[in-house]
Amino acid sequence: MAKVAILGFGTVGTGVAEILMQNASLLHKRTGQAMELAAILVRTMRPHPLQHLFVQSMEEILSHPQITLVVECMGGTTAAYPYVKEALSTGRSVVTSNKELVACHGAELIQIAKEQGCAFLFEASVGGGTPIITPMFQSLCPGGIDKIAGILNGTTNFMLTCMEQMDMDFAKALHLAQQKGYAETVDPSDDVDGKDAARKLAILASMAWGSEVSPSQISTCGIGQVTPFDFQCVHKMGHTIKLLAWADKMDDQLRGAVEPVIVQKNSQLGQVNDAYNGVQISTQYAADVLFYGQGAGKYATANAVVADLVLALQAGSSVHRLLSWEKAVKPQPLKPWDEPSAYYVHTKDVPASMLKSLFGEGELLLEQDGHCGYLADCLTPEQLDKAKERLANEPGELMQILRKVHLEQN
Amino acid sequence: MAKVAILGFGTVGTGVAEILMQNASLLHKRTGQAMELAAILVRTMRPHPLQHLFVQSMEEILSHPQITLVVECMGGTTAAYPYVKEALSTGRSVVTSNKELVACHGAELIQIAKEQGCAFLFEASVGGGTPIITPMFQSLCPGGIDKIAGILNGTTNFMLTCMEQMDMDFAKALHLAQQKGYAETVDPSDDVDGKDAARKLAILASMAWGSEVSPSQISTCGIGQVTPFDFQCVHKMGHTIKLLAWADKMDDQLRGAVEPVIVQKNSQLGQVNDAYNGVQISTQYAADVLFYGQGAGKYATANAVVADLVLALQAGSSVHRLLSWEKAVKPQPLKPWDEPSAYYVHTKDVPASMLKSLFGEGELLLEQDGHCGYLADCLTPEQLDKAKERLANEPGELMQILRKVHLEQN
Repeated sequence: MAKVAILGFGTVGTGVAEILMQNASLLHKRTGQAMELAAILVRTMRPHPLQHLFVQSMEEILSHPQITLVVECMGGTTAAYPYVKEALSTGRSVVTSNKELVACHGAELIQIAKEQGCAFLFEASVGGGTPIITPMFQSLCPGGIDKIAGILNGTTNFMLTCMEQMDMDFAKALHLAQQKGYAETVDPSDDVDGKDAARKLAILASMAWGSEVSPSQISTCGIGQVTPFDFQCVHKMGHTIKLLAWADKMDDQLRGAVEPVIVQKNSQLGQVNDAYNGVQISTQYAADVLFYGQGAGKYATANAVVADLVLALQAGSSVHRLLSWEKAVKPQPLKPWDEPSAYYVHTKDVPASMLKSLFGEGELLLEQDGHCGYLADCLTPEQLDKAKERLANEPGELMQILRKVHLEQN
Repeated sequence: MAKVAILGFGTVGTGVAEILMQNASLLHKRTGQAMELAAILVRTMRPHPLQHLFVQSMEEILSHPQITLVVECMGGTTAAYPYVKEALSTGRSVVTSNKELVACHGAELIQIAKEQGCAFLFEASVGGGTPIITPMFQSLCPGGIDKIAGILNGTTNFMLTCMEQMDMDFAKALHLAQQKGYAETVDPSDDVDGKDAARKLAILASMAWGSEVSPSQISTCGIGQVTPFDFQCVHKMGHTIKLLAWADKMDDQLRGAVEPVIVQKNSQLGQVNDAYNGVQISTQYAADVLFYGQGAGKYATANAVVADLVLALQAGSSVHRLLSWEKAVKPQPLKPWDEPSAYYVHTKDVPASMLKSLFGEGELLLEQDGHCGYLADCLTPEQLDKAKERLANEPGELMQILRKVHLEQN
């Protein structure tokens, strides 16, 4: 019998409780032992069918020696970090959906789990219901990982899909995302500014290369500047706009960023629409593999948490032979993209005839009400900087520059 | 120290040997023990850098008590079945890339592994280098699986891509696939007739619903009748043609088939091109997830084999709490699709004006040199049979009927 405590009883926490109870006998069969929900840490007591399990202090959970599995879905790190640390330090396996916790404290928490012979698992922290973490450390483990490229934030992907398919501007798309519950109503900046995607990328990059990458090391740009005009332009070249979280390792140097880019519409990532997530991992042996699915959702996320509970029971701390990273010795910002690329450039009140002299050979995609969309064939980062400088001295405005990213075309 | 024997030293076998040797220290670190290649079963001795490990009889391997891991990549079942059975019966874990072996004898071999406390693993048998089996039984384990829909054969998918993108007919596409090493030169029927896909579907369906589905229970149709004209027609409705391996469970009744169908071009599976594979799994809790990657290839497949070796060392027979199915009590053919659907109909020398009276309301997509492509809006299976019967009594020919399958549009 394994007794389970849940910390935080919001959307994910209630989903976990439901799945555990609805599938008790199936899970018993699959793990070889019963999993019983024994305590739920809540902020305030309230009437609920499970209120007999409600507790209001972490001490009550820690003083319960039979609780060997802890699910953390409080979010944030203020309480989650010390609570999870305490649970692991007392030999309890912890499963979390909290990407901020994992991105900021993963190396330390994994180290404690190893020392205490328990497991710290977090499949639900990236991709919600889409299996990414477990296949990445298990199925792709034999060789090295070369590159990660993903659409890791469902909210912004939903908004970009609205802008693309329904011709909405940013404000309207955000409003709809808020109505649908995808975006926070008070402060949606974690999603729209790319911070959420950067946390998830930090987790994947830490896993992939074994040294902690914190979100603060990742250059992060959101989708606030993307307009329906940009979509019109890039459609003309068979492309679309995605908020891409990418990282790779070149000559022992990590590169990476979270940024809106243009990708071919008929690539696998170009086809990830609405609130879905997709991550493409390029490996030494297995070439490109892609994992795709719902990026969030109560049951999808809770499903990932419960799968981790099963894995914790099955494998215990032995998973950390495969799933592990160290504190970085000298954390440095990830290098940005530094190779020559094509760029989509959007200007306002700049004569179309000037674009070629500013950005080099290319194609004028669209000219409309003073706006120009131009595809510059090939610029080095230095050339791009110079072009921006020169443009700053001209009348007119630079509205947007998006790098063209070449993904596999299958 | 775990000693490994490889049975069969073709493409996959040599790839496994290379990965084991090139990554010895990484794998040691990740599994907690060294894996050492100790024997390779070959048909004929030949000069080779590893010839000191070559043996020619299974007895030599079985008499070696330190060999606890066996990799089977001989293919077929004549020798593979008794050898794998013997290895498992003596408590050795077996990893295989052999889909025929798993599809036809999986239930029995898993049962032996359970009894002997070892593992029988086969990630490489479906999807080559794409992780499907392990994420399916681990990450999606908490709830039930509703539906499987996949492009499981890279050869036919490559051929369909050639027909679609380069306007080749079946014979030319086959020839190119043979030149590229995707299709067998002597007898390519396993691929082109859908048999290979049916074996892989049999494995996934057995896993998903816990009762053995053998390939012989699956109605299987290949791509021999697909023509470039068909692609021209379905493009007009934003669709493409894919060889789909699908199964679902409705009211305790399994349905499924391997058949060419039309799917929306901008769906995830519609975008799986060339020799790639993609499998979409619909689950109770995690909604639709999709796994996508190379369907074959020496290192991709060998990578999956080595990942299974790591899992066998890590989890041993405990994986079979999650990965397991029983012999079917009364094996019955999977039911075909039985709901009303839209159908693409291709006729020759049938007056276009007759199509509506035969197949009901619909749209004439293309008329060319006596060929007609027609999209029938909605037919029940009975209506479709009647229409076929009536057409058989008319002059002209029915060239092709393809069901329109509605996949998620993300």
